[in-house]
Amino acid sequence: MFRSEYGIRFAANIITVPKMNSTIVSRLSHEYLPVFEEKLRSIVMDSTVATKLVGQMLHYHMGWGDVLKSESSLGKRIRPLLTLLCTEAAGGHWRKAISIAAAVELIHNFSLIHDDIQDKSSLRRGRPTVWSLWGAEQAINAGDALFAHAHLVLQKECALSSESKLEVLRLLDEACLSLTEGQAADIEFERKNQIDLEMYMNMIEGKTASLIAVSTELGALASGASLQQRVCYRDFGFALGVAYQVRDDILGVWGRSSTTGKLTGDDVRARKKTLPIILGLERSDELRVLYKQAPQNDSEVETVITILEETGVLEEVTNIEFDKVEIALRKLSNACPKGVAGEALVALVRQLLGREC
Amino acid sequence: MFRSEYGIRFAANIITVPKMNSTIVSRLSHEYLPVFEEKLRSIVMDSTVATKLVGQMLHYHMGWGDVLKSESSLGKRIRPLLTLLCTEAAGGHWRKAISIAAAVELIHNFSLIHDDIQDKSSLRRGRPTVWSLWGAEQAINAGDALFAHAHLVLQKECALSSESKLEVLRLLDEACLSLTEGQAADIEFERKNQIDLEMYMNMIEGKTASLIAVSTELGALASGASLQQRVCYRDFGFALGVAYQVRDDILGVWGRSSTTGKLTGDDVRARKKTLPIILGLERSDELRVLYKQAPQNDSEVETVITILEETGVLEEVTNIEFDKVEIALRKLSNACPKGVAGEALVALVRQLLGREC
Repeated sequence: MFRSEYGIRFAANIITVPKMNSTIVSRLSHEYLPVFEEKLRSIVMDSTVATKLVGQMLHYHMGWGDVLKSESSLGKRIRPLLTLLCTEAAGGHWRKAISIAAAVELIHNFSLIHDDIQDKSSLRRGRPTVWSLWGAEQAINAGDALFAHAHLVLQKECALSSESKLEVLRLLDEACLSLTEGQAADIEFERKNQIDLEMYMNMIEGKTASLIAVSTELGALASGASLQQRVCYRDFGFALGVAYQVRDDILGVWGRSSTTGKLTGDDVRARKKTLPIILGLERSDELRVLYKQAPQNDSEVETVITILEETGVLEEVTNIEFDKVEIALRKLSNACPKGVAGEALVALVRQLLGREC
Repeated sequence: MFRSEYGIRFAANIITVPKMNSTIVSRLSHEYLPVFEEKLRSIVMDSTVATKLVGQMLHYHMGWGDVLKSESSLGKRIRPLLTLLCTEAAGGHWRKAISIAAAVELIHNFSLIHDDIQDKSSLRRGRPTVWSLWGAEQAINAGDALFAHAHLVLQKECALSSESKLEVLRLLDEACLSLTEGQAADIEFERKNQIDLEMYMNMIEGKTASLIAVSTELGALASGASLQQRVCYRDFGFALGVAYQVRDDILGVWGRSSTTGKLTGDDVRARKKTLPIILGLERSDELRVLYKQAPQNDSEVETVITILEETGVLEEVTNIEFDKVEIALRKLSNACPKGVAGEALVALVRQLLGREC
């Protein structure tokens, strides 16, 4: 297995994670997430007979299986954590937003199940994907069921007024539509020859940023925040989502499997059109030639990575990520987040974007 | 091409369609459906850029393409017609229920798009399916987008109170969950050896009856009907849905392509475990042996059909259909449907269940 020393060193130096702040995130995660997880599990499983196939698939995918239960199989639960932190930071109590956080997490997981089918990914969080165990036909049903559950969760447990509930549902469904359109564009890119930065940005705004933006906005909404404050939280989540996806693209090329769960150079091997590749294809004839062949072996993957580093692509994508992080932090600051939850949001941004290669 | 004369004659005699009543259905369809269709199209396409891939797929699937536009490519629109008729029959104005009818139709079409991927069906309403034109990956997105649209439609155009809107959304999502679980059971049946009548009934109650039940219940809800009346409309739709699926299973074996759009014996050829086959497998050793081989040629398909007729299966499934139609009509009568819309509902039941082989 090769490693790109330059890439790892460069990316690791971008943002240092302050120890103290990451402790705040950890402390609040440990306070919120077990309560959240138990609520999420009970709401979904109570309305699904566990012996029925759909219930089995959801139970497995969500990481609630007894045998395989571990923190890593539960997923990172970043979106619901953002929702709950934003509720607190906007002056509400995090418990008020649990059903909203649950809906957001279920929407995210519906898209993961369908995404794994579309990408033919055999692993997710180090475990076999739903489609690889039950077949694509049944995995489509599992995703569809989670989509329905995401809506039902809000009906059952949400303490908001009817008008607010309807607004939450509308914002969630609009995010779902953007997510689906972003997902479609992403798949389309695999077949297109020419993709520019603007097209790429539109795609990840749909695929990733829209749901993170709604996670933060709905957190603020649950606390009864003003429309102006909600917009700040939304803009914060949106910029964070873009930065998060750019970071993910960096990890897809320079990441190490021990920290990301993905193989190094995975996206290159799959000839994905992620941001580093899109910029590289614009700059290097050699890369264009290499990318016409498929699939790529380890030595070709290493050549691609070297080209991306020598043509300054790694530096550029890192700068793009940096800019978005700055926007995210500025928008968050405009929202005047309060207390330890506010501090934790800042720390979480740094932690997420400092994810090691 | 073979034909089973006995089957056709038998099935055609089951229910005669009174000319006068079918005229009522036709008249009200022509009054409601063009308005409904235009509203449906404008709501979905206004929020989707038609040049975007997802918009293109939806535009095509829904039958709104300029080139291919014809009544048959629009689909039968039975569910929204039921909703609108029930609103009128329960004393409301059908226009009040248009967005609800739109939501129901979009949910139905989301499930059709995913169903075609799961069944690998290349044709729907005589036209290539979405997945066969754009690939399964993109067709998953098209279905997901329709699911989101079905929810958004209710937010945009529905004149009900917030509480009623939330109730409509809850009932719809519960139906979606049942639909998905029924769909999962249907796929599971293909691999199971032993399926009995009870398992089959549970499956079609989820796959087909739940959405038709919600179509009729929501029609009543839109008119402001009492809970008791709503339950009658729901029970009516539920029994109708079961009868409709049983009829569909009969057509899957004995149907002629000119009237059903399916090839005669299609379900037998695909070795599907539909109701006639499930009953036949219980009765005939010869059928069990035949069903272990795959795929089946025309002569084997004809043998299967002969077995089903000689062992009395056609008669039994027809009786099951009959019983459900009677229940449906009794439940409808309990709801005391009013005016021409009420008459049209009775006529529609007879028309749907009199669909020729």
